[in-house]
Amino acid sequence: MSKEITSRDKDYSQWYNDLVLKGGLADYSAVRGCMVIKPYGYALWENMRDVLDRMFKDTGHVNAYFPLFVPRSFLEKEEGHAEGGFAKECAVVTHYRLKADPNNKGKLMVDPDSKLEEELIVRPTSEAIIWNAYKDWINSYRDLPLLINQWANVVRWEMRTRLFLRTTEFLWQEGHTAHATAEEAVEETVKMLGVYTDFVENYMAVPVIKGVKTPNERFAGAIDTYCIEALMQDGKALQAGTSHFLGQNFAKAFDVKYLNRDNQQEYVWATSWGMSTRLIGALIMAHGDDQGLIMPPRIAPVQVVIVPIYKGDEQKKLIDTRANELMQQLKAVGIRVKYDDSDNARPGWKFAEYELKGVPVRLALGARDLENNVVEIARRDTKEKSSVSLDGLAPYIATLLEEIQQNMFEKARVYRDSHITEVNSWEEFKEVLNGKGGFISAHWDGTGETEEKIKQETKATIRCIPLSSKEETGVCVYSGKPSTQRVLFALSY
Amino acid sequence: MSKEITSRDKDYSQWYNDLVLKGGLADYSAVRGCMVIKPYGYALWENMRDVLDRMFKDTGHVNAYFPLFVPRSFLEKEEGHAEGGFAKECAVVTHYRLKADPNNKGKLMVDPDSKLEEELIVRPTSEAIIWNAYKDWINSYRDLPLLINQWANVVRWEMRTRLFLRTTEFLWQEGHTAHATAEEAVEETVKMLGVYTDFVENYMAVPVIKGVKTPNERFAGAIDTYCIEALMQDGKALQAGTSHFLGQNFAKAFDVKYLNRDNQQEYVWATSWGMSTRLIGALIMAHGDDQGLIMPPRIAPVQVVIVPIYKGDEQKKLIDTRANELMQQLKAVGIRVKYDDSDNARPGWKFAEYELKGVPVRLALGARDLENNVVEIARRDTKEKSSVSLDGLAPYIATLLEEIQQNMFEKARVYRDSHITEVNSWEEFKEVLNGKGGFISAHWDGTGETEEKIKQETKATIRCIPLSSKEETGVCVYSGKPSTQRVLFALSY
Repeated sequence: MSKEITSRDKDYSQWYNDLVLKGGLADYSAVRGCMVIKPYGYALWENMRDVLDRMFKDTGHVNAYFPLFVPRSFLEKEEGHAEGGFAKECAVVTHYRLKADPNNKGKLMVDPDSKLEEELIVRPTSEAIIWNAYKDWINSYRDLPLLINQWANVVRWEMRTRLFLRTTEFLWQEGHTAHATAEEAVEETVKMLGVYTDFVENYMAVPVIKGVKTPNERFAGAIDTYCIEALMQDGKALQAGTSHFLGQNFAKAFDVKYLNRDNQQEYVWATSWGMSTRLIGALIMAHGDDQGLIMPPRIAPVQVVIVPIYKGDEQKKLIDTRANELMQQLKAVGIRVKYDDSDNARPGWKFAEYELKGVPVRLALGARDLENNVVEIARRDTKEKSSVSLDGLAPYIATLLEEIQQNMFEKARVYRDSHITEVNSWEEFKEVLNGKGGFISAHWDGTGETEEKIKQETKATIRCIPLSSKEETGVCVYSGKPSTQRVLFALSY
Repeated sequence: MSKEITSRDKDYSQWYNDLVLKGGLADYSAVRGCMVIKPYGYALWENMRDVLDRMFKDTGHVNAYFPLFVPRSFLEKEEGHAEGGFAKECAVVTHYRLKADPNNKGKLMVDPDSKLEEELIVRPTSEAIIWNAYKDWINSYRDLPLLINQWANVVRWEMRTRLFLRTTEFLWQEGHTAHATAEEAVEETVKMLGVYTDFVENYMAVPVIKGVKTPNERFAGAIDTYCIEALMQDGKALQAGTSHFLGQNFAKAFDVKYLNRDNQQEYVWATSWGMSTRLIGALIMAHGDDQGLIMPPRIAPVQVVIVPIYKGDEQKKLIDTRANELMQQLKAVGIRVKYDDSDNARPGWKFAEYELKGVPVRLALGARDLENNVVEIARRDTKEKSSVSLDGLAPYIATLLEEIQQNMFEKARVYRDSHITEVNSWEEFKEVLNGKGGFISAHWDGTGETEEKIKQETKATIRCIPLSSKEETGVCVYSGKPSTQRVLFALSY
């Protein structure tokens, strides 16, 4: 496969696919809409998962695992789901056996005798199956709060798929908590939004805006959906995580009550919150450039790559020895380092390859460098090169990685901040949307009708009502009706 | 739920279920044959997974993730699968949409317009989907070996299920490697059997016998299936892991060739190997007693529990302070410790609860203990109690945990070794099988017919031809025909 990358200007969408495929993150699969997460992409996901998992545990959560299948009737119990939502576009298991096809030697067919009495749905999300279990687990206030997270695969039958951004099957985590009071559940919802913000900003180096969804954009069955919204380089927004306050909806649907301290039966209060492999798409589009991926050091599968530059075996041997020493020093301070001494590619090819893969720091180690006791360091984010002494290299690199992490966040923040535009008229709205893009901060009359009309006319949606937004009197950009605060519109993934 | 445990003597099968359910490892679910892995059980699985994952990475493997679904036609390509094997009893996805049932308000039905052209099978194992991907990834000898592992859920439509031991959905890892030569693939197969042996013996404290399966018991499509077999306390064997040398079968089925160093196209050689949540069943039955689970310290979710014993708030406060100090000391040396100062249960109830959960070490900390600067230590494995000085407690406990780990393995090994019986006649065979049980070491004529007849008459199967077994002339216990070595028979899970 050619390693040439389409530029963003030429074809943004093709640029994205090039980074995913040629960067070795994922591949298409033989199953419609499903992708293969390749080792490099999966190593990134493992790092993301490990950081998040630690954050969940530090905030008192435990992991568990619930069945892949949800009986059809369970989805009917969820208020709102029977009427709409992704529960409808899903993988439906109707039979449990294949048999040899009597009319086609060597072929298999569905055994009609194995039809299920009730179809099973491959989970699009697990509220139903989990709340059905909680019914047996929760009896008294002593059983609360119940703070459980699950790492799992889910399936939503998407018609138009994009690698990482929208796939039929994807990996995610879903937290499902149960509480004695509404206040506590709301507190949990907001706390987990904070955990997500911490993770996305400080590990993925992607700045986000915290907000609340409008009723139209809310998760079916939620009272309030909190979200974090990130901005991609093409000016489109991407929802990076959601945290739902579910009220007592699921408790009522699955009859989950607890005995309170006053010895009375009450319905339990719920939250759910999730983050998925979709975030990898956000990482690619927030940071990548025309040379390839740029990995934030804190979650980069490989933080430092060492490339030897030599002529002949003797030079190679000397460099090997020094490189192995460096590897030990770097590993000793917890740096993920790779020594690429493969002999089937020239240094220039390797440089391009690790640029494409977005390795934050590249060390080029040549014979003359050894003589001078230095190494050439190239930063992936700024492409700056410098010659640095081999003495004390490990702490130098550790500091450099942190500097790159901060610089990546800053760069993305400056871009994002320069793409939040306050507009006060419908003409201005359309001009910005079709021009520089980004978030449009505008007054909105608060009605679903106006929201829907704007969406139909421009494809822009209200990404969120920012938690930080202040009361401000104004008039809706679309309807001219009175409004009390600005909301953020954008085109989105 | 009553916490009383049925004794092994009374009802072994009920004892097992009591340990799983009342020990808080897992629960039944609303989906036939699927279970919920509860937080305590999942924490155990996480520890098992983390150790194994480290071992895989240390032996050069990387993780990836492949689709949940396998197109029906892929299973037809696998030699042997179309004719038999678990690919037939599986969850079949035939449709991709539910819709509101027009004749039943609030109900959902399968949308007949959403029928798939080709059914999708929820993976019972991933050879087919993975080898289909490998076809694109492997071109030259430079791409080999390809050493990939996947952590995933799989589904096999089991008719008779048992918690952990046999469930419709289970969690596992599956390694799928590709090699340039048969020798290298066989070496990998044996190496991974070694990794499994190391893990099961040194972390789960369960002794195993390494061996090779007979052709009848082989994985469909394998040239050789290596396995490790463990012995449970009821005298039945349990297959704890398998490692398959697949020859070129999958390479041929999915047309995966590589250009060798002589510039010629050759089919690739393959292995696959797996271990699953089933192992938790082995852990329960190898170690548990009539008081509950016994967790091997190295993978125990909680290694040490501290229970305060006090009268009044003043004593409680003193004990809290000291307990928190101890917690810090124990955590500092990497010990997983829990302080249970909940006020809704008496110490006696807590003692029983942690015995049931199998926590290796319990510390009871009372007011008088503090005065004497001691703590009461109870070992779960031997039930021995002793009073130990609080000074230098952390290293003492670290040593004790290792001692418990070794003792658990030794105890299981002595039991296992005393349940390998050499028999030389068919009468003896049946007598041992129906008496003390365990492994029966007997001569076998090497034919599938005899193997099948023995199975039909006694339900005993050949668990393996041990790798350690020596050549020895004899006659088959069943047919009287000549034999060159003994094999191990047993009833099994």
